Amino acid sequence: MSAYKQHLKIYNSLSSKKEAFKSINKDLVGMYVCGPTVYDTVHLGNCRTFISFDLIYRYLKHLDYNVRYVRNITDVGHLTDDSSEDKIIKRARIEKIEPMEVVQKYTNEFHSILNFFKLQNPDIEPTATGHIIEQIEMIEKIIKNGYAYDKNGSVYFDLISFSKDFNYGELSNRNFDDIINESRTLDGSSDKKNPQDFALWKKANKSHIMKWRSPWGSGFPGWHIECSAMGHKYLGEKFDIHGGGLDLKFPHHDCEIAQSKSVYGNNPANYWIHTNMLTLNGKKMSKSAGNSVLPFEIFNGSNNIFSKSYSPMVLKFFIYQAHYRNTLDLSDEALKASEKAYEKIKTIYKELELIVPGNENDCDAELWIKNCYSSMNDDFNSPKLIAEFFNLYKEIQDIKSKSKNIDSVNLKKYQEYFSIFYTDILGFDDAKSEKNQLGEVLDILLEIRDKERDKKNYEVSDLIRDKLSKLGININDEQ
Amino acid sequence: MSAYKQHLKIYNSLSSKKEAFKSINKDLVGMYVCGPTVYDTVHLGNCRTFISFDLIYRYLKHLDYNVRYVRNITDVGHLTDDSSEDKIIKRARIEKIEPMEVVQKYTNEFHSILNFFKLQNPDIEPTATGHIIEQIEMIEKIIKNGYAYDKNGSVYFDLISFSKDFNYGELSNRNFDDIINESRTLDGSSDKKNPQDFALWKKANKSHIMKWRSPWGSGFPGWHIECSAMGHKYLGEKFDIHGGGLDLKFPHHDCEIAQSKSVYGNNPANYWIHTNMLTLNGKKMSKSAGNSVLPFEIFNGSNNIFSKSYSPMVLKFFIYQAHYRNTLDLSDEALKASEKAYEKIKTIYKELELIVPGNENDCDAELWIKNCYSSMNDDFNSPKLIAEFFNLYKEIQDIKSKSKNIDSVNLKKYQEYFSIFYTDILGFDDAKSEKNQLGEVLDILLEIRDKERDKKNYEVSDLIRDKLSKLGININDEQ
Repeated sequence: MSAYKQHLKIYNSLSSKKEAFKSINKDLVGMYVCGPTVYDTVHLGNCRTFISFDLIYRYLKHLDYNVRYVRNITDVGHLTDDSSEDKIIKRARIEKIEPMEVVQKYTNEFHSILNFFKLQNPDIEPTATGHIIEQIEMIEKIIKNGYAYDKNGSVYFDLISFSKDFNYGELSNRNFDDIINESRTLDGSSDKKNPQDFALWKKANKSHIMKWRSPWGSGFPGWHIECSAMGHKYLGEKFDIHGGGLDLKFPHHDCEIAQSKSVYGNNPANYWIHTNMLTLNGKKMSKSAGNSVLPFEIFNGSNNIFSKSYSPMVLKFFIYQAHYRNTLDLSDEALKASEKAYEKIKTIYKELELIVPGNENDCDAELWIKNCYSSMNDDFNSPKLIAEFFNLYKEIQDIKSKSKNIDSVNLKKYQEYFSIFYTDILGFDDAKSEKNQLGEVLDILLEIRDKERDKKNYEVSDLIRDKLSKLGININDEQ
Repeated sequence: MSAYKQHLKIYNSLSSKKEAFKSINKDLVGMYVCGPTVYDTVHLGNCRTFISFDLIYRYLKHLDYNVRYVRNITDVGHLTDDSSEDKIIKRARIEKIEPMEVVQKYTNEFHSILNFFKLQNPDIEPTATGHIIEQIEMIEKIIKNGYAYDKNGSVYFDLISFSKDFNYGELSNRNFDDIINESRTLDGSSDKKNPQDFALWKKANKSHIMKWRSPWGSGFPGWHIECSAMGHKYLGEKFDIHGGGLDLKFPHHDCEIAQSKSVYGNNPANYWIHTNMLTLNGKKMSKSAGNSVLPFEIFNGSNNIFSKSYSPMVLKFFIYQAHYRNTLDLSDEALKASEKAYEKIKTIYKELELIVPGNENDCDAELWIKNCYSSMNDDFNSPKLIAEFFNLYKEIQDIKSKSKNIDSVNLKKYQEYFSIFYTDILGFDDAKSEKNQLGEVLDILLEIRDKERDKKNYEVSDLIRDKLSKLGININDEQ
């Protein structure tokens, strides 16, 4: 495995190139991923992001890295722009409940959806409201270093001052002059020096619910500062990977970089990874345009967009059939095709179990394993890995039809590594899940029954038949 | 239902009496329950507490109260005594991970265990680290009012000063002079004025990981203050119900009351509810004495204490067969009896479905419903409610044997209200889930195995054991 470890390449959004991955500390990886704002049901595009980082997390751990994966929960401060209402407070007003009830409701729902996809939990899942002091302390340092100013109880990041010492917009590759020119002009009421300055701390008015005391009076943190404060708290001044959806690249991630540079002089992460968008029938998903579907609506088929329901595992398989950096279009046709493909790949476990190896061999499991690692090492290329599964599937058919031979050494390797790539790394349900477990336990029971019937021990065989019949499982002996 | 609503009585630990329940605001109930300290796997005694409050939460909602249920997560500051190490930091040192990774790990596990018991999520689940500022603000108020003092960077509650104005220990009914006399004398190094003073804020030394800035320097909050700060933040100055395990009555809850009185002049809650202890084979559960068993060890049978595994629903049924204020002893015999009883009660759904009503009637469903409500209104008396289920079960047998008649009106009422009390209020799985089917098929298999073992037919019994073991289901024969 260590031979493969050194060949991992990651596409770095910072350089727009695939780069060899080298962690800061030999066997440790620190990874920060921007989590959801818990003001509404998480949408499928977000799920794609978290599913993709689950793959990355699992693969890095498989390569024997000790990974600390931090994914935050944004439960305060996410404004559409600096003058709009906090998304969570707005929702609380609509649902007539306390903001922290909104947070709890949608955090629970978020966890439940990710559980359906069988994602592993991050090692730390910090909340923005849980780190107000840390955010205040970071803002103080930015002010002290001359890159932020307070005005009327709010604090803004001073982009003009920052740009004299550092490059702003390096991630999104924007030219600072363009950014300035793009900005709307300020109306008279703004506290900002320049329109492109962004809020680090906002003054709260009297009726505002979510607010805390600070050196600048009662208020709440801006959105960008939370990720910087929590990332550095749990991963140090500099960490390995920072990730998120492509829509966060600008301004969120460029603002994060500016904040870190203001305090530590450096970009917080060596590798920036961005997952691409999910479209629906060729168009951007949009609730208002009726072009939107939620995870649960796909799982249970309660939508007018698809002809049937699709399981979380089929949806995940569909997502892995595209590389995370490509856009991906959700459609009934595509999901149907994925379902068919998934049903095929799923049988590989059992097919391999049923093969009786011989002395002759025409298979090269080592080469297949090498190809699987090469796929994953090529910027976590899951579609290439799935293509390798299809190669294996084809080989199994050849073995079954006797046009190829396999010996026990190669068969064992296929079994071992299919399990590693399919279950451990892609995180698909293995054959041991409860649904299958019912089937397998039933199989044992029927096997016992057959044995007893052969021995003409009808007492036991009838007992089994009658008991199963009470559960609604009927055995048909006539055939 | 509103007729039943006004008859609810709750045993109030404060008065040691059953009292008529009257909420502060007509149809609203605010309820705060002390949650777990997430430094280790939650034990069964804790589970009993959370299962009991789930019943209370569900019943209050059924009575049409709009309940805000707050249950905290203690993720900092829980010291065994004021001079010992924080439980979470200690665990982090042992597991060689960051304290917040300990918090995440055991919070996830806690949620997963409660999910097995099918408990409803609280409306807000606040964390102690998420409310440092709120705790600091409350401590400042206590100091300002003259009931706390700071010394060398720590802040202590001044019990002598408090006791001049208020009664301390009213919940545990302790005499203040006794408390003073019970206290150990201070050694020379203590910052406390009096040995019985408790910490509100502790100074952190340089190597301490979990610390925050405060008006008294870098430190961390004491354990008692978090519940006061979070309770008041989400439920106001005065709320309806405060609950927790009996072991929290003193000092935790009496300290909470003292803190609230210091700031608001009043006990924070009108009703205090305490759940009693769970013992194991007649003795207090204790890890060090080997007299302890974890929920998962019961679910999957991986323990040396019980002869077999018991499902979460059987365990919950067992817990509900005792009133929450009584001690309850866990034993193999008791669990076996509960399993048998649960299997019986579980059939009521189906049995009612199979009954064909006639024109004649000897049943009084209205009376039965009234008795069910009376049981619950009698301080949430779940064993009385379960006794009503057995009455119904007996009546069903009478109907089946034609010694009683039932008409469709009464049958329908039984169906409707059994579903309300069994599924909505006690929160039991209905018979339709797949999980039960697995359990039932497994039970048949194990029954066959027992029979074959009795016949010394070890070929079959070993085959079953080995096949199940391959599926990850281990049978424990040694006892």
